[in-house]
Amino acid sequence: MLMKMSSLFVRTLREDPADAEVASHKLLVRAGYIRRAAPGIYSWLPLGLKVLGKVEQIVREEMDAIGAQEVHFPALLPKEPYEATGRWVEYGPNIFRLQDRKSADYLLAPTHEEMFTLLVKDLYSSYKDLPLALYQIQTKYRDEARPRAGLIRGREFIMKDAYSFDVDDAGLDRSYDLQRQAYQRIFARLGLEHVIVKAMSGAMGGSRSEEFLHPTPIGEDTFVRSPGGYTANVEAVTTPVPDPIPFDGLPAAEVLDTPDSQTIETLVDAANRLHPRAERPWEAADTLKNVVLALVHPDGLRELIAVGLPGDREVDLKRLQAGVEPAEVQPATEDDLKGRTELVKGYIGPAVLGPNGAPRTLDDAGRVTAGAMRYLLDPRVVPGTAWVTGADADGKHVFNLVAGRDFTADGTIEAAEVRAGDPAPDGSGPLELARGIEIGHIFALGRKYAQALDLKVLDANGKAVVVTMGSYGIGITRALAALAEANNDDRGLVWPMQVAPAHVHVLATGKDQQVFEVAERLSRELEAAGVEVLYDDRPKVSAGVKFADAELLGVPLSVVVGRSLADGVVEVRTRATGEREEIAPELAVARVRELVDAALER
Amino acid sequence: MLMKMSSLFVRTLREDPADAEVASHKLLVRAGYIRRAAPGIYSWLPLGLKVLGKVEQIVREEMDAIGAQEVHFPALLPKEPYEATGRWVEYGPNIFRLQDRKSADYLLAPTHEEMFTLLVKDLYSSYKDLPLALYQIQTKYRDEARPRAGLIRGREFIMKDAYSFDVDDAGLDRSYDLQRQAYQRIFARLGLEHVIVKAMSGAMGGSRSEEFLHPTPIGEDTFVRSPGGYTANVEAVTTPVPDPIPFDGLPAAEVLDTPDSQTIETLVDAANRLHPRAERPWEAADTLKNVVLALVHPDGLRELIAVGLPGDREVDLKRLQAGVEPAEVQPATEDDLKGRTELVKGYIGPAVLGPNGAPRTLDDAGRVTAGAMRYLLDPRVVPGTAWVTGADADGKHVFNLVAGRDFTADGTIEAAEVRAGDPAPDGSGPLELARGIEIGHIFALGRKYAQALDLKVLDANGKAVVVTMGSYGIGITRALAALAEANNDDRGLVWPMQVAPAHVHVLATGKDQQVFEVAERLSRELEAAGVEVLYDDRPKVSAGVKFADAELLGVPLSVVVGRSLADGVVEVRTRATGEREEIAPELAVARVRELVDAALER
Repeated sequence: MLMKMSSLFVRTLREDPADAEVASHKLLVRAGYIRRAAPGIYSWLPLGLKVLGKVEQIVREEMDAIGAQEVHFPALLPKEPYEATGRWVEYGPNIFRLQDRKSADYLLAPTHEEMFTLLVKDLYSSYKDLPLALYQIQTKYRDEARPRAGLIRGREFIMKDAYSFDVDDAGLDRSYDLQRQAYQRIFARLGLEHVIVKAMSGAMGGSRSEEFLHPTPIGEDTFVRSPGGYTANVEAVTTPVPDPIPFDGLPAAEVLDTPDSQTIETLVDAANRLHPRAERPWEAADTLKNVVLALVHPDGLRELIAVGLPGDREVDLKRLQAGVEPAEVQPATEDDLKGRTELVKGYIGPAVLGPNGAPRTLDDAGRVTAGAMRYLLDPRVVPGTAWVTGADADGKHVFNLVAGRDFTADGTIEAAEVRAGDPAPDGSGPLELARGIEIGHIFALGRKYAQALDLKVLDANGKAVVVTMGSYGIGITRALAALAEANNDDRGLVWPMQVAPAHVHVLATGKDQQVFEVAERLSRELEAAGVEVLYDDRPKVSAGVKFADAELLGVPLSVVVGRSLADGVVEVRTRATGEREEIAPELAVARVRELVDAALER
Repeated sequence: MLMKMSSLFVRTLREDPADAEVASHKLLVRAGYIRRAAPGIYSWLPLGLKVLGKVEQIVREEMDAIGAQEVHFPALLPKEPYEATGRWVEYGPNIFRLQDRKSADYLLAPTHEEMFTLLVKDLYSSYKDLPLALYQIQTKYRDEARPRAGLIRGREFIMKDAYSFDVDDAGLDRSYDLQRQAYQRIFARLGLEHVIVKAMSGAMGGSRSEEFLHPTPIGEDTFVRSPGGYTANVEAVTTPVPDPIPFDGLPAAEVLDTPDSQTIETLVDAANRLHPRAERPWEAADTLKNVVLALVHPDGLRELIAVGLPGDREVDLKRLQAGVEPAEVQPATEDDLKGRTELVKGYIGPAVLGPNGAPRTLDDAGRVTAGAMRYLLDPRVVPGTAWVTGADADGKHVFNLVAGRDFTADGTIEAAEVRAGDPAPDGSGPLELARGIEIGHIFALGRKYAQALDLKVLDANGKAVVVTMGSYGIGITRALAALAEANNDDRGLVWPMQVAPAHVHVLATGKDQQVFEVAERLSRELEAAGVEVLYDDRPKVSAGVKFADAELLGVPLSVVVGRSLADGVVEVRTRATGEREEIAPELAVARVRELVDAALER
C-alpha cells in the first residue's frame, strides 16, 4: 500500500515543543514521529514506528547471527524472584511497584536477570545444554526521578536484553566477547558512532562491565579517553595511587590560627597571609577537605559518612554514588547534623572522623550505627602525605598533618572529580573528558543471580556447579534518539538509509494534473522495484510547505516532480548533502534504486 | 541459521502441568511454547514466539490492507484521560493501578480508546482528514478475578486494537464493515472457525457491537444460533415480547394458603394439591419468582434490586450483569436484608417491591437510596399475564395476580436464562446454545469518547462536529490459544501451516553417521528452497523420543531420515492425517516444497 502524505497519520509542527531541550526530542516530535503521553512516556506514530522496527530488526539479525535465541517475558512480574536477589529492595524508588486485587506485590520489570535465570533453571540441567544465549526485545520500565531529553531518559522504553549462560569462566569470557562483537556490528550497521568504555557493574553485580557510549555534548554520561587508548566511564576511572612517603624527617603537625577560613579559598589565603612558607605558596591542593554526606541504604538506614579529598577537587556525586551502591548519596541535612557538636563548620578535621574519632558501633555490614562516622579518603591521600586541614575548632586549622602518622581512615573511595589532563590509570597519557549517551551496556555477571536463585547444572563429572552468566542490553528507543541526535541539521532530520522510514520521498509540486499522474506512477514503479516510498500527493499544499516537510521528515532521497516536468526532467535530491540532479522520469527509478543500494551497500 | 533441536531452547514434558485444565494450556506448556511466570502471566519460549509472530503478521497484513495505520501506545498511562470518560471508576478492581514516585496515579491500560481519541485530537482538525483508522499490536493488562485456561484468560496479553474516526454515522458504518470484513479474512487465513454474534456494548459504550467467537466446548462465552441464521452472545439475546392481554374477564386476584412452599417446586406442588384448577395443572411457568440481588455501583453505592421472572427460569447472572453495567451484581447478603421485614423468605411478592411498595427516594441516576427497592421484570411479564406469586406473608401466595392491573414495576430486564429451544427474537426458529472463545470484538462506539474528550473537527460548512468512533479488538494470544485448542490430538499439537513454528521437522534417527549427514544436508537444502526447518540432530536421543517430541511440537510435515536410507528412501509424514510416503532423498525437497505451497495456497 503506497504511503501517501494525504492520508498518512502525521502532522508536522513549525514550533519546538515547550518541554524539549535536545535536538532529537524537538525534531522527533515536530516531524510527527512521537508524541508525549506522560512524563518520560511516549506514543509512536506511523513514521516513528517504521524507524523503530528497522532498528529492532538490525539488532535481531545480529543477535540471531551469534546464535542467541529470541524469547519474550512479561513486563508485569511478581516480587519474589527480585526479593531472592535483593533487588526488590535495592531498586528503591526507581521501579514501578503495584499490587494486584489480592494484594500480591508486583513490579514493572526494569531488567530481567531473575526471570531468565529461573527459566533456564526450569528447562536445563546439564553442562551439555550450555553455552546458551537468550534475548528479547521488550518494553521496560524505570521510575526515573528526572525523565528528560525525550526518548533518551524515559520511564517506559524498549530494550534488547540478552543473557548468556555458561558452565565456567572461560565460557563466560567467550559469550561476553561474542556479544561485544555483535554490539560493534549493530552500531556499525546503524551508523552510530560509539566508544566502548570500562564501566562500573553497580547494582547489577559482576566482575567486568563495559558501556557503549555514543559521543555527543548532550549525553548524560561523562567518559574519559587517553592518547594511549584508555577509555572509561567517569565513574569507573581509578586514580593512580602515588607511592607512600617515609615519615622520617617530616615536620610535626602544628595547629595554627586561621580565622574566618571556612572555605578552601579563604583558607589558602589565610595560610599564605598568616603562615607563609619558604619553598612555595600554599595552594588548594595542599589542603585536605572533609565533606560530610548522608548515605541512604536500601533497608532505610541513614548513615553519615565523611569523604576526605584534596581541596582543589570537588566531590563528584555520581562517582561517589557508583562507589557506594546500592546506597543512595544525599547531602547532609540540618537534621543529620543536629547534636553533632564535634563537627565545626569549615573546620572539620580527621581527628573527629572514622577511627580517629569517638568510639563507635559498626553493624555486620560495616556501617556505623553510633559514634564517629565512617571516614573515606581519596586515593591520593597516601601515607606520608602532609595536609592543611581542619583542627575541629573554630578559627583553627592544623598544618603538616601527615596521613598514616597523624590520622587514619576506614578506607579509600573514588569520589573526587576527574579533570581533563589527569593521568590515565594505565599510564597511557593525560585524560580528555567527553560526554555520551549510553546506548549499550554489557556485564560479565558471574554467579550472583545463579547463586541466589540456585541455577546449577551437572558438569562432565556429574557434579552440580553454579552457572555463570552475562547480561547485555541495548536501549532500542534510546539508540533511535541517538541516531536522530547525530543526524539532523537546522531544517530537520537526516536519516541514514538503513533506518529511514522510507527510502525516497516523492513530491508532486504545482497544480498540473500531469505532475500528479507522473509522480504517482513513479511512486508505484519505485515500490515495484523494492524501494520504500513516501509520496506527497497533497493537492492543495504549496511546494514550499512540501519541501519544508520533506526536509523535516528527513527521508534520505527525494524525487521532485514539478514544473521541470515540462522540460522532460524530474529532480533527485539527496537530503544529507543537498545534491540535486535532473533526470528524465523514465530513468529515475533506476537511478534511485542505485542510490538506495549504494547507501545500503547491497 | 538452521534451527536445531540440540541447541534450541526447549524442553518437552511428558506430564500435564498441574494447573492446566484445557488442551491448549496443557500442550503449549508441555511442548515448550510458553511457561507460566505468575497467575495469568506467561513467558514465551522461542517456538511460541515464532507462532505468535506469524499470527501477528497475518493480523498486521489485513489491517494494512484496509488502510489502517500502525502506531504504538504506552501500556503505562496516566489516570486523567480515563477519569474524563468515567472508566477510571467503572473498571473497578479489573485494572492494575499504581502510583509513580511522585504519587501520581497510573494504570496499565486494558484498552486505549482515550489515548487514541486524544492523539487524533492533537493531530487532526478537519473532516478532510477523515476517515482515519489506526491500530496497534500491544501488550495489555487486566486484573482478572480468575485468570484461567492458560492464555485464554490472562492478565498480561497481546491485543490488536484498532480505532476508526469518522465525521458521520454513515462513515462509521463503512469503517465498521471494513473492519468486520478484515476480521473475517484474518480468521479465515488463520484457519480459525468463527461465528459472528450480536453482543452487548457494555462498559465500552456505543450502539452496535459484535463478537467473533471460536466455537469450542471449553469456551467461556455462551452463544445462541437459530436455523434461520440469528446469532448472539447469550448476554445479547432479547426475549420475544408477547402481546399484552386485555384485562376484561380475567379473574380477580386471590390470596390462598400455601404452607411450606418457599421453593417453586413446593409451590407448584401445593397449588396443585390445595388449589387445583380445571383446565390444566399449575406449572412452574405459571409462577412469578422474585429474586433479590445487590448491585455495587462504581461510586460504591450498594443498592438492592428485585428481579421478577417466570418460576421455570433461573436468573443468569452474566445476562443480568450485562444489563446493569457498569454496576456489579452480587448475591444479597444477610447484612443487606437486615431490617427488611417486608421481605418474607420464599413469599416475596410484587406488593412490597418497586412502585407497589413503601414510599422511596431515588437519586438523579434513578437509583433507590431509601424505601422500596427497584423492581425489574422479565420481558415475558406483559400486562394481562396472570401469575401465582408471593403474598408477602408466611404460608401465603396470591393467585391470578395480573401484571399491569394488580402490580407494576420499574422496567424490564433481560436476566432470565436462555434455554435451547427458546424462540429466536427475529422469528428465525428455535435457538441452539453453544460455547465459544471470544477472539474478536468490534464496537460502533459512536460519540461517547469523542464527546468526553472533546474531539471535534470542522465539517464541510466550517462547523465543529463531534467525531464518531469505532473500536475493534483481536486477542492475539487468545487466538493463538484457540488455534492450539482447535488443532491437537492425543499426541500433541497439529499446527496449520500458516502459523506453525516451522514448515517441516527433519528427524535424523539411529546412529548411522550417514543418516545425520543426509538429514543435515536435506535441512539446508530445504531452507535454501524457502522452507522453514526444525532439524532434530540430537545424537543420543532414541527414534521413539524424537517421534514423540515431533508429534507433541506439531510441525505440519516431517521428514524422517533413518534406517530406510539404506534402501535409498526417506519418509515424508503429514502430522494432521498421519499419511506417510517414501521418497528418494533427492526428490524430498521438491516434494516438501510442494506440500508446503499447497497448504499455504501459494
